[in-house]
Amino acid sequence: MNENNFKKILVPLDGSKYSEKALGRACELVNVFDSKLVLIYVVEKSVPLNFLDRKAYLKMLQKFGNKILDKANSSLSKKGIPAKIIIKEGNIVSEIEKVAKKEKCDLIIVGNKGLGSITRFLLGSVSNKLAQSSSCSILIVK
Amino acid sequence: MNENNFKKILVPLDGSKYSEKALGRACELVNVFDSKLVLIYVVEKSVPLNFLDRKAYLKMLQKFGNKILDKANSSLSKKGIPAKIIIKEGNIVSEIEKVAKKEKCDLIIVGNKGLGSITRFLLGSVSNKLAQSSSCSILIVK
Repeated sequence: MNENNFKKILVPLDGSKYSEKALGRACELVNVFDSKLVLIYVVEKSVPLNFLDRKAYLKMLQKFGNKILDKANSSLSKKGIPAKIIIKEGNIVSEIEKVAKKEKCDLIIVGNKGLGSITRFLLGSVSNKLAQSSSCSILIVK
Repeated sequence: MNENNFKKILVPLDGSKYSEKALGRACELVNVFDSKLVLIYVVEKSVPLNFLDRKAYLKMLQKFGNKILDKANSSLSKKGIPAKIIIKEGNIVSEIEKVAKKEKCDLIIVGNKGLGSITRFLLGSVSNKLAQSSSCSILIVK
């Protein structure tokens, strides 16, 4: 029996084509390694400074996140791939890391662009930050 | 038939345990996706400033690189995995990128640490630079 370091895969989604591509790549691995799949959407708490109604903004993102996760989940169901769905609120990178740790994932698959467009210019891209700080392996899909 | 985005995998080696781990992960993928495997060692041209005999230093690295590649290749042979072996001289990141492009690799697998210890403090880690600049997907193994 071969070693399997792809037992549990975490894919952060954000509704971009990049995260869709990352999910596609995850499915390829799930199919051959029989990996468990966890999908996460993080509602970014860092709201643009001049946004008036912070509460309404976060609610809108929450709704958006649920929609993204539902869509991905039903598309996976058609392929016979079960997935655990998680939605969090906070800093994208640290929430992804926390979930990766809690769920004991051994791989995070992210798109090269897409995640965290709002804070990108302040914080650097999420995939780069994850690559540096995450304690589990990371596949950056181009 | 499933899509296969793991047709050709490039693994840069440097003799560290990190690149050995990356190679192990590559083997797992090769076994299930029947991927072609390319190993590369890059002789870093950026020699420490006070090093007196530059030529002898580069020759030493070249010898080291060949040894690393030979060792990896014979260990792969025992597992029945064929690999293409490439040794280059120059900047680690750009040589890896050039080979990835020329060989039409769709994935580079690197260790999180290890590559380019000499110039790390000047240039930032190789895996991070590759993650940012490479046009093909990259798996950073922790």
